[in-house]
Amino acid sequence: MAAISLHTLNTAGKAQFVAALGDIYEHAPWVAEAVHGKRPFANLTALNDAMAAVVRAAPAEQRTALLKGHPDLAGKAARAGTMTSDSKAEQASAGLNRLTEGELKEFHRLNTAYREKFGIPFIVCVRRHSKDSILREFTRRLHNHASTEVKTALTEVFRIAALRLDQRVETPDRLRVHGRLSTHILDTQAGHPAAGVALELVELAAHGEPHVIASGTTNHDGRTDQPLIAGRPVPIGRYELRFHVGDYFARMGVAQGDPPFLDVVPVRFAVAEPESHYHVPLLVTPWSYTTYRGS
Amino acid sequence: MAAISLHTLNTAGKAQFVAALGDIYEHAPWVAEAVHGKRPFANLTALNDAMAAVVRAAPAEQRTALLKGHPDLAGKAARAGTMTSDSKAEQASAGLNRLTEGELKEFHRLNTAYREKFGIPFIVCVRRHSKDSILREFTRRLHNHASTEVKTALTEVFRIAALRLDQRVETPDRLRVHGRLSTHILDTQAGHPAAGVALELVELAAHGEPHVIASGTTNHDGRTDQPLIAGRPVPIGRYELRFHVGDYFARMGVAQGDPPFLDVVPVRFAVAEPESHYHVPLLVTPWSYTTYRGS
Amino acid sequence: MAAISLHTLNTAGKAQFVAALGDIYEHAPWVAEAVHGKRPFANLTALNDAMAAVVRAAPAEQRTALLKGHPDLAGKAARAGTMTSDSKAEQASAGLNRLTEGELKEFHRLNTAYREKFGIPFIVCVRRHSKDSILREFTRRLHNHASTEVKTALTEVFRIAALRLDQRVETPDRLRVHGRLSTHILDTQAGHPAAGVALELVELAAHGEPHVIASGTTNHDGRTDQPLIAGRPVPIGRYELRFHVGDYFARMGVAQGDPPFLDVVPVRFAVAEPESHYHVPLLVTPWSYTTYRGS
Amino acid sequence: MAAISLHTLNTAGKAQFVAALGDIYEHAPWVAEAVHGKRPFANLTALNDAMAAVVRAAPAEQRTALLKGHPDLAGKAARAGTMTSDSKAEQASAGLNRLTEGELKEFHRLNTAYREKFGIPFIVCVRRHSKDSILREFTRRLHNHASTEVKTALTEVFRIAALRLDQRVETPDRLRVHGRLSTHILDTQAGHPAAGVALELVELAAHGEPHVIASGTTNHDGRTDQPLIAGRPVPIGRYELRFHVGDYFARMGVAQGDPPFLDVVPVRFAVAEPESHYHVPLLVTPWSYTTYRGS
Repeated sequence: MAAISLHTLNTAGKAQFVAALGDIYEHAPWVAEAVHGKRPFANLTALNDAMAAVVRAAPAEQRTALLKGHPDLAGKAARAGTMTSDSKAEQASAGLNRLTEGELKEFHRLNTAYREKFGIPFIVCVRRHSKDSILREFTRRLHNHASTEVKTALTEVFRIAALRLDQRVETPDRLRVHGRLSTHILDTQAGHPAAGVALELVELAAHGEPHVIASGTTNHDGRTDQPLIAGRPVPIGRYELRFHVGDYFARMGVAQGDPPFLDVVPVRFAVAEPESHYHVPLLVTPWSYTTYRGS
Repeated sequence: MAAISLHTLNTAGKAQFVAALGDIYEHAPWVAEAVHGKRPFANLTALNDAMAAVVRAAPAEQRTALLKGHPDLAGKAARAGTMTSDSKAEQASAGLNRLTEGELKEFHRLNTAYREKFGIPFIVCVRRHSKDSILREFTRRLHNHASTEVKTALTEVFRIAALRLDQRVETPDRLRVHGRLSTHILDTQAGHPAAGVALELVELAAHGEPHVIASGTTNHDGRTDQPLIAGRPVPIGRYELRFHVGDYFARMGVAQGDPPFLDVVPVRFAVAEPESHYHVPLLVTPWSYTTYRGS
Repeated sequence: MAAISLHTLNTAGKAQFVAALGDIYEHAPWVAEAVHGKRPFANLTALNDAMAAVVRAAPAEQRTALLKGHPDLAGKAARAGTMTSDSKAEQASAGLNRLTEGELKEFHRLNTAYREKFGIPFIVCVRRHSKDSILREFTRRLHNHASTEVKTALTEVFRIAALRLDQRVETPDRLRVHGRLSTHILDTQAGHPAAGVALELVELAAHGEPHVIASGTTNHDGRTDQPLIAGRPVPIGRYELRFHVGDYFARMGVAQGDPPFLDVVPVRFAVAEPESHYHVPLLVTPWSYTTYRGS
Repeated sequence: MAAISLHTLNTAGKAQFVAALGDIYEHAPWVAEAVHGKRPFANLTALNDAMAAVVRAAPAEQRTALLKGHPDLAGKAARAGTMTSDSKAEQASAGLNRLTEGELKEFHRLNTAYREKFGIPFIVCVRRHSKDSILREFTRRLHNHASTEVKTALTEVFRIAALRLDQRVETPDRLRVHGRLSTHILDTQAGHPAAGVALELVELAAHGEPHVIASGTTNHDGRTDQPLIAGRPVPIGRYELRFHVGDYFARMGVAQGDPPFLDVVPVRFAVAEPESHYHVPLLVTPWSYTTYRGS
């Protein structure tokens, strides 16, 4: 669905307003309907807060219906093609559209157990997760008490809605739903940024092949022109940055040993806070390197 | 063959002497025969030098015959079980006894091309190499001139002989044929060695799975009780050390994020000088690390 | 003298124009006069280039007169109070107004020797230097050939003029006469910037006490709110940054030893390129630190 | 007094035994007398333990007399030349024989206040301290309760005795009274130890000039041939190691900037545990360095 400006929303009639925002909450256009009368919204945060307030103030049965309206993860709706387009894109972002047979079975087993125990589908804001961390959350949350879990599910519903709203509405202010992943390579042998170093960002998974999710080459300032991840949450998960420093030092004409002591430097790390800035730089010579969570 | 002391060799009759050292040079007992008269040897270096001098002083045809007496790498002799036991053990050390079909074909192709061009088998001191670096050397040396290559082959024959001699003879002095690979983990968050950290040393290969060649746990001084490799050359090749620091910091009760920012830290490096000491330490906190070629 | 906009200069009559820019070149208003007819100037670089071109195109005697019009460093003009206000401020910036008796004698000796050999005063763009590096340059340049030295003196005159022009004229573009010195402290024990760390920047001198030239406290991003030096050249010289990390870790409640292993961390470095960015960060735990020339 | 072997002591008559060990406890030969009958001692630890046990088992008045028998620090006995030779050497080791007038007054003030409050002289094992830390201890301990302070004084008496015994008796085992301070310089630009680097170890003081206590040059392994401090406690105090890396890299012919970005690298640290090993290495390129408490 195309983006729409906050100004347009603020001046829209009810039908247009609900057409634009009716699917921010899954199968729950009543949320958009309820806030139409509260226009104009000073900014996106105000709109987001108003919609969340409607959900919080709704009767318990309506909230439960909202939760029940969500599709299973990697479930029948996905295979049948009956998911909302938002849900489809979200599940694909975490790789749930390319699971192995074993993983599909595991999801099926967890979905069944979860529905049996809680009477609602398992809801998680998948854009904040990798496949591995979804499975970890799934397993972990199965042990919750029902009352805790309803609260947790609602928190995830709010996260999903905020991300959808942030993408849907054009406005100067942004919701606090974005993280950032960046890097920087400093050649501490020569005392300047390392330019022209090829690098890849790989998502690691407990099962299955590593998945290259970004690649690039450092510019004259030792950075990639764009952050490796920006404008969205950095999914909770495990990653590997691969820095091709052997080729770089070879181009610099620097003595390295044959084969070079360092060639492709792998830096493995995990992301735990999707809305944070992860800066993972490399200080490197042909014989040593330092890496750290920077800022 | 059992080890024998230098003293015993110095007082041995010719038959016993040649029985002990006749296979130091492949299929060339005449080398041992020729040095028997030069006993006693002050030390192992003197014995090694004397045997090499015999080879260098031999008529060209005899030297060529010595070269021709070596088996192909991963060749027919291996499959037929007709290699000397030394050659068999040496080729196994570099993993030549567990090649894929594709690699066997590549060795066959290179063996044929090499014999055609130079009239001798390809000789390399395999204990100084990994599978990858043998293939690299093979390809590289095929481009040599015949005169260069005969010299190179002879240098390798001397290396093979020195390693065999160093293993065969018990004596206080050792030949300079040993390297060493060691590590050390320092917890720079707490300012002391990191004890109880599990680690593995893995040999990497261009094709095929990584191969764990050593593993251990750090002691109270942050080191493994024994070096990861010692008493032999460190094979030219590419390696990865894997340090399980996430578990360590969890045991220390230190805040790490969930999942921990660092868990298993991989350090990839290459060895280029098999007779050198490679010390590859890790200075680590839950949020940063430094590694380098130390001493 | 008050700053003036490029627009005003571009529309000024000759008298106003020369009043504003007549002292950009020391005692040489003819340079400003000569470029008045070339207005308008698209930007500051164009104006600067035009003035330099006038000097380069002037008859040799006029250029020599320009050089001779400069005051001695720490010389009679300074003591007599007859220097231009620009020269006075410039010499003060390098501490030439607070020399010891020994240093004054040394300057006198060098001034005399230089004038005797070259027939002109020693000219150097003092805003690019510390006291130590001026003395070093002075001694070094005394060994030059006369022809080299006239070129060198002229280069310095252009540097002085560019800095004066950059300060005098308000315009969106700046001349490339600025450097920057900045720092950043990362607490690699906790994995975040170190906020609230007191620090000082000290200029070191071969003789005399260290001179604190900036001090501050790191903000929540581990940086000082303003760079330690910006908007001007970073004088060639030797510096020490002092980071009060012991107090910081004490506030964090972190085990440090008593007394703490690290307390005030001194980082000594030299600046060689006044128009460059020197970023000198600190990665620190209570038991370790790393520093480097960053970017 | 000359060293004596444990064997000689074990076979000595009472007179010889007491002559050798009568001054291990200050003005208290009765301690040596009491253990003579317990010979032979299996090792130095057994002898030390036996003497301490005698002190612990002595009547309270005798222990108090032992405490009272100690001289003031930097007191009248020192100036009058009536201290035991052990005490004289010990006080000199901490620089108490070269105090300023202000420091002498401060010691006099503290001595008086301490004697007034506790009725005994202030006793501290000065070989474990620098001047600064003695003053800090003095001030701190003045606030103790009398009962605590008697225990503390006795602990110090045992430390003094153990150090004297360790120096006096020749035996294969040593008491655990030694620390060690060492360094190591690794050139991470070239990937090998930095040989030929001049360095100094300086003791810092709150008042007065830094005091060079060791200096040397690194050998081919990047270490000093001897540890900077060994065979004795490393005095509690603040130190600065100064590494002359600018000269080293200049000899290596490496680009450094002019003046070099790094020249003399100062590393400031404090020692808190005199019987520990402090390893303070430097990993250095012309543009970066790392230091840490190693092992």
